[in-house]
Amino acid sequence: MTTARPTQASRLGLVTPVKGDVVLGDGTLGLWQRRNRQTTIPHGIERLESYGALDNLRRLIGGTDAPFRGPVFADSDVHKVLEAVAWELGHEEQSDFRAFYEETVALLTAAQDQDGYLDSAFQRADRVQERWTDFASGHELYCAGHLIQAAIASVRALGDDRLLAVASRTADLIVRLFGGAESQAYPGHPEVEYALVELYRLTGRTEYLDTAKAFVDRRGSGWLGRGAFGTAYFQDDASVRETAVMRGHAVRALYLNSGATDVYLETGDDTLLTALKAQWDDMVTRRSYLTGGTGSRHRDEAFGDAYELPSDRAYAETCAGIGAMHWAWRMYQATGDAQYGDFFETALYNVVADGTSDDGASFFYSNPLQLRPDHISVQEEAAARRLDWYFCACCPPNLMRTFASIEGYLAGTRGDELQLFQYTRSRIDTALDGGRVVLDVDTDYPVDGGILITVVEGFDSGTLALRLPGWSTGHSVTVDGRPIEAALENGWLHLPGALATGTVVRLDLDLAPEVLSGNPRIDAVRGSVAVRRGPIVYCLEQGDNQADIDQVVLDPTSPIALSGDTTQLGPILDAVGHVRGDDDRLYAGWDASSSAEQTASQVRLRPYATWGNGRPGAMRVWVPAASV
Amino acid sequence: MTTARPTQASRLGLVTPVKGDVVLGDGTLGLWQRRNRQTTIPHGIERLESYGALDNLRRLIGGTDAPFRGPVFADSDVHKVLEAVAWELGHEEQSDFRAFYEETVALLTAAQDQDGYLDSAFQRADRVQERWTDFASGHELYCAGHLIQAAIASVRALGDDRLLAVASRTADLIVRLFGGAESQAYPGHPEVEYALVELYRLTGRTEYLDTAKAFVDRRGSGWLGRGAFGTAYFQDDASVRETAVMRGHAVRALYLNSGATDVYLETGDDTLLTALKAQWDDMVTRRSYLTGGTGSRHRDEAFGDAYELPSDRAYAETCAGIGAMHWAWRMYQATGDAQYGDFFETALYNVVADGTSDDGASFFYSNPLQLRPDHISVQEEAAARRLDWYFCACCPPNLMRTFASIEGYLAGTRGDELQLFQYTRSRIDTALDGGRVVLDVDTDYPVDGGILITVVEGFDSGTLALRLPGWSTGHSVTVDGRPIEAALENGWLHLPGALATGTVVRLDLDLAPEVLSGNPRIDAVRGSVAVRRGPIVYCLEQGDNQADIDQVVLDPTSPIALSGDTTQLGPILDAVGHVRGDDDRLYAGWDASSSAEQTASQVRLRPYATWGNGRPGAMRVWVPAASV
Repeated sequence: MTTARPTQASRLGLVTPVKGDVVLGDGTLGLWQRRNRQTTIPHGIERLESYGALDNLRRLIGGTDAPFRGPVFADSDVHKVLEAVAWELGHEEQSDFRAFYEETVALLTAAQDQDGYLDSAFQRADRVQERWTDFASGHELYCAGHLIQAAIASVRALGDDRLLAVASRTADLIVRLFGGAESQAYPGHPEVEYALVELYRLTGRTEYLDTAKAFVDRRGSGWLGRGAFGTAYFQDDASVRETAVMRGHAVRALYLNSGATDVYLETGDDTLLTALKAQWDDMVTRRSYLTGGTGSRHRDEAFGDAYELPSDRAYAETCAGIGAMHWAWRMYQATGDAQYGDFFETALYNVVADGTSDDGASFFYSNPLQLRPDHISVQEEAAARRLDWYFCACCPPNLMRTFASIEGYLAGTRGDELQLFQYTRSRIDTALDGGRVVLDVDTDYPVDGGILITVVEGFDSGTLALRLPGWSTGHSVTVDGRPIEAALENGWLHLPGALATGTVVRLDLDLAPEVLSGNPRIDAVRGSVAVRRGPIVYCLEQGDNQADIDQVVLDPTSPIALSGDTTQLGPILDAVGHVRGDDDRLYAGWDASSSAEQTASQVRLRPYATWGNGRPGAMRVWVPAASV
Repeated sequence: MTTARPTQASRLGLVTPVKGDVVLGDGTLGLWQRRNRQTTIPHGIERLESYGALDNLRRLIGGTDAPFRGPVFADSDVHKVLEAVAWELGHEEQSDFRAFYEETVALLTAAQDQDGYLDSAFQRADRVQERWTDFASGHELYCAGHLIQAAIASVRALGDDRLLAVASRTADLIVRLFGGAESQAYPGHPEVEYALVELYRLTGRTEYLDTAKAFVDRRGSGWLGRGAFGTAYFQDDASVRETAVMRGHAVRALYLNSGATDVYLETGDDTLLTALKAQWDDMVTRRSYLTGGTGSRHRDEAFGDAYELPSDRAYAETCAGIGAMHWAWRMYQATGDAQYGDFFETALYNVVADGTSDDGASFFYSNPLQLRPDHISVQEEAAARRLDWYFCACCPPNLMRTFASIEGYLAGTRGDELQLFQYTRSRIDTALDGGRVVLDVDTDYPVDGGILITVVEGFDSGTLALRLPGWSTGHSVTVDGRPIEAALENGWLHLPGALATGTVVRLDLDLAPEVLSGNPRIDAVRGSVAVRRGPIVYCLEQGDNQADIDQVVLDPTSPIALSGDTTQLGPILDAVGHVRGDDDRLYAGWDASSSAEQTASQVRLRPYATWGNGRPGAMRVWVPAASV
């Protein structure tokens, strides 16, 4: 295990992530990580073969003469799966992953040009002239970013620097070509920015940070051109520092802001942080779904207008959910503020968890909050069911690398304070200013609100802070069985005293189901309610219900009962609904006065992320309130 | 004036349109036709020059060496403007229109290949090999359809058959290549179907009808391929006869069904009519907006799922509104049912009228029912303001030819019954079975509900039927000042007795504003109300109001007053609204219990189609109801 060098972040007194010192147990996240290892990643490796992504690289070394297949950024799928495999080999040696890892590292090494260029889409003889000509759509810097991230994973997880040598040659080429003041360049699809900052953290070479900073600084000049969707699509209509609005392609926007936050973490440039905070607030208050989904528009995969949040046409790309987690994590590092953990876990347990099927082998690209009966699907873009792969396969490998490294997001340290950012069964072994501390976290969260933390190895000066989620309406803390009043500050419950070995801390969060209504400016959910339990958003699915779920109305005041059936995200819920009489009025009959009959009916709700695993049918998160 | 030959329609005893025998006065439609003639068409001619559409054709005869510009279907813009000009020259000789007409007819004649091929996109040397290879997207048959329609206009309006000679050569080529049983071909974008049926009506040549029928019959085989959006996009997933669902690209669907209805009108094939009626009902009850807009989805310009009708992301293309008028008109001919007039006038006075600015020189492509403040626009696709032209310029010339020939949609005859389908100031001079009849219609409809019909020339056996709009909640009829009870059948008020010269009939329709709510299955408008007066849908526009219109709620029971200000579509309305306190709750604060303060406020509503002519700002048709 190679330790990252100290970063500017720690010099600024901000949060340092506890990374590589956390092991997951069999909690919700641990089980997902296991499913990812056992099913999803092997499936992904097979699809890299059958969809030609590996052959695209093999052709470069004479290993095949198959034509190039897939989108221009097909290499990035390889890089992302390779990153996931590296993290997993760090957890446990496995012969099939090892074989893929060794072959792919060798393939990338051999395929790289002398000058460091490595991108099979533009190493084809017929496209060599097009290298570095289409920054808006060519995705070369995007692919390079994923290559760098895979290399960093192989160093951090395995101590293997062979891929780092490849990625560094690519990064050095990028620095040579675009790092200087004479260059105006930056990528149409951000990604390389945070890869370069992390490469700086790993190597200490400031030119990587400087180039990442240049890419962030230059953006907004309009240099990328208008493309099909205008400059805002690329976040190229205004400088990162000079806007408070989340706009354009959601994944691009979230990767850009993750990179910009990383630049802040290493430079301490407050003008960046001020703008990023304003954009964060814009996203959270005006342009995000209850599920943590972002980017409502299908046409350009973009953030829409403020409060433009349709349930049925929620694009809410899985990759945008992951991008929001990346950004939330970095904003937490930058500010130490627990609120970022709320959005992080909302995205993780809803829009991101929704991306993978129960069996681990099919995936959603878009994550709507409603599926109508007889849905008219345009295949990849608005599939009614998870698909087992995509032509544009960005999301499945992104899920793979996310779950393979999810333990990296559980905790942070700030001086001698250890902060628990996310709760799941795990062992956390880390160094505070005062010395090493080891915690065992035992919890079925988010199924259950009880979180038991045992200090396995402690010391005199370290303190513990626990994130109190923003949704919490009730909690209690005990230390060695004695109730205490933990001071709440900035979303953190501060435990008094040092982390002495053997101390047992218990946090109980009230997970009673809540009935929520939307901000009145969100037209799409007016007159409707949604049910949430802790961070878990619920939905009606047709397969669970007798009544036509599009005719069900919910009384917000009726009790909601926990059924005996529990998923990995929490119990199935039973509520009292009413079923409207059918009222399929003709056009000419638009009429305020007619009121349909209603009959009482039991309805069942399930965690949103678990929908679509049974019988195909309609689904809705927002349900009309009975009074309407 | 060349008279159309008798059609099968008349032999089936169905409605025959009164065409070419109607003259508009200075009513709403007459004034729009004048604006179209004085401003919109001249503007369009200029844009055909400045956007290169005419040069595309001139290059073929050596008149320029400018490169091809515009989309592959740029020729169709020329054909549509030419059609508009032909109709207008039929109204009144004008030197500027005459010059354009003569030059363009000569240009098209000279540019046509020996074999009848005429499409400048594929007459370029570098694309000749691509002719007739891309039926899905090449638009060759689509452009041919518009050429044929322009030619028919020039015959019907001017008795000039020079363009007919050109169009017939193209049509003959199409018949030769694709008319036979050995061909599987049909167009990716329907249009040529109804052009060919009309060419059959004009010439009596059955091969045109047969080819149109073949194109309709073959569709649904999947022969067009999947394209970017799947087979349903092209209505190629199922035969026209075997589906009850409106799906895919809305303009394609509506042009296809217009053509299929025309095939029915000439063949009497009831299997077609049965399917078309089911699809009509699907559109009207489940997939259309209060404004007559259709095709809610932006990404593929498509009909969405049933009840997927967002106000903000209503695509509702102007051309789809025109296509719905075409189809409604033909369904009326096929069935004699007045209900088709309701949708026709709804589309005409709302989604289609909305397409043109007050000054006649800028245009909407998409027609949302809501514009949010600080709208993020992707230029052509979701413009916040009417644009003065488009790269994809299908809509403006479509508006031009529609308003230039709008008098053709006012009335129909069925045996010795004259049916008034639409009301506007006009003179109708037509032949019934029993002889000629001339009516003067005097009305400010839809501003005013009074319609005065004077029989200028009548005869013993003719009768008159007046469409009673479906929205009508009250009406009265007098004949020569005496109140009568006119029998209502199938939406028609049948006047007793013959049309004796000098008879004066007066129909009064109650135009009191109505407050409407949506079908409860339409999630997007739940808890909201809309105001309609007669066929005119109203909206709140920010420029008319002091209060933030996104904070206004309306009490559905409050009186709505007519203000003194009247537009061409009706008075401005004053209502009592309430303004919610701002309630920009943070994400963590989603909460059913908080209730915002409200203060009373006067609000103003204007006819939807007149929005966007003043100060830029938000707009909404559906307004939250006060109880929510």
